[in-house]
Amino acid sequence: MPSMLVVGSVAFDTLHFATESHPRVLGGSAVYAAIAGAHFAPVQLVGVVGRDFPDSAIHLLRSRNVDLGGLEVVDGETFHWEGRYSDDLSSRQTIRTDLNVFADFRPKIPDAYRDTPYVMLGNIDPTLQLEVLEQIRAPKLVIADTMNLWIDIKNDALRELVRRIDLLILNDEEAMQLTGHKNLIKAARNLQDMGPDTVIIKKGEHGALLFEGADVFAVPALPLEAVADPTGAGDTFAGALLGYVAKQDSVDGATLRRAVVYGSTLASYCVEGVSTHRLVTVDTAALQTRFEQFRKLTTF
Amino acid sequence: MPSMLVVGSVAFDTLHFATESHPRVLGGSAVYAAIAGAHFAPVQLVGVVGRDFPDSAIHLLRSRNVDLGGLEVVDGETFHWEGRYSDDLSSRQTIRTDLNVFADFRPKIPDAYRDTPYVMLGNIDPTLQLEVLEQIRAPKLVIADTMNLWIDIKNDALRELVRRIDLLILNDEEAMQLTGHKNLIKAARNLQDMGPDTVIIKKGEHGALLFEGADVFAVPALPLEAVADPTGAGDTFAGALLGYVAKQDSVDGATLRRAVVYGSTLASYCVEGVSTHRLVTVDTAALQTRFEQFRKLTTF
Repeated sequence: MPSMLVVGSVAFDTLHFATESHPRVLGGSAVYAAIAGAHFAPVQLVGVVGRDFPDSAIHLLRSRNVDLGGLEVVDGETFHWEGRYSDDLSSRQTIRTDLNVFADFRPKIPDAYRDTPYVMLGNIDPTLQLEVLEQIRAPKLVIADTMNLWIDIKNDALRELVRRIDLLILNDEEAMQLTGHKNLIKAARNLQDMGPDTVIIKKGEHGALLFEGADVFAVPALPLEAVADPTGAGDTFAGALLGYVAKQDSVDGATLRRAVVYGSTLASYCVEGVSTHRLVTVDTAALQTRFEQFRKLTTF
Repeated sequence: MPSMLVVGSVAFDTLHFATESHPRVLGGSAVYAAIAGAHFAPVQLVGVVGRDFPDSAIHLLRSRNVDLGGLEVVDGETFHWEGRYSDDLSSRQTIRTDLNVFADFRPKIPDAYRDTPYVMLGNIDPTLQLEVLEQIRAPKLVIADTMNLWIDIKNDALRELVRRIDLLILNDEEAMQLTGHKNLIKAARNLQDMGPDTVIIKKGEHGALLFEGADVFAVPALPLEAVADPTGAGDTFAGALLGYVAKQDSVDGATLRRAVVYGSTLASYCVEGVSTHRLVTVDTAALQTRFEQFRKLTTF
């Protein structure tokens, strides 16, 4: 089965919720995406951590089918983010961001990874995402995630990146910000004109829209009564999506639609637990059950 | 085929958009719902207008299969609402509301309508909605629409109404306001506990959620690039939904799911034209085409 490559952050998160706090739990875009993708296909991870990164986290990732040959361990401390969620989990505020060793991260793709066909450029500086692209030989599908920060401060690099990838994933606010269109259809068509054949706009609790060529697919979010921790849901979505594509070794429209539903499925599990706790306990049967729940939710 | 009964407002709307204005066009919850429902089943309308209500509007409604035996014409002027939409049509501001003859509206259901099995209580004072209920003999399905105003100023009457109907339709903000729950699943379950077996929460451009017993169905809105006038979309949704139910003469889960999609279908046409212009020109073939577009949009 083809592998997928994930490049992104590996981090500790300190999370504060209304009634409890979780200091220094495992996080980072590459971690969430890798664990999610590895439910479907072998994953190669490229990232950087400090000497303080614990063996337990290494073992956890390895046990999940994640190849860490691209994880640099360097002198210094691991990226640490601390934030507080609003009581209803609909927004969050950063308390502090210690980039630490991540500040000097220059992704080096091991030679053994350069022919990997499915590539996820997690949400990092678009200049670095472009550097990764230069090191990849013949990808079948490159997907990239981004955030409002890069739209603000690295707009040119981001546009250059968008021009060169196959699938852009972003949320509704970012799509509006990057294109100036409040109408999401117009925004998506504009983004497709910038380069990628495929654009996915995430709408949080309202689900996601997939634009593939002229085609549109809409999937709702699974209605959940209890959300524990929204951290990493977007990275999980992207990772699972790419993992499913790798497993099928296909980028046709029907595969992409199902990939979006598997992305939503993993994301729905992700938010049920703090950090990656639920993501690592869910098994194939549970995945399949929830995939079928999406079918039941949407069939008429 | 069984008929459906609609009780609500019949009005003139003066609509201001970014680049144009439309003075005194046909509007009102009962008008939108009746025209939408009449695409599927015979409709009986109960409402009130003044002597200024033009023959052309009467002819239009009659030509659409709407029975006006319950439309009172009284001395005075017809209800008139004037408002201005924001440039992106996402919000609107009332400039003036002249209730006119609608201020003294006390719905009288003609004897010939009292056995009508499918009843829509359009968005009017819940005290009046309750008065209509008293005049109905053996309905198979009563649906009611409401708005934030009644949640604020007629909360007790609204709760009494909710206790006695089968299907409540409201938007996400109203659901949160009425229940105090920000989570829409919790809000819907709470509303079901108040009385109705079925609750539909409308989410505007994000579609709608149908809660029927323990079952949940989610339908996205059809992605539209060009919206001309959002007025009446909610009434159109409800009217078409009930019209389809009447046509099928069934309230089972599968019928309700399709009814929600037909409601969304008509609503998507409604917003493409100003006032009821698009709603009266769409034919059965176009309806069916767009219904299938919803299937294509959501199938995986």
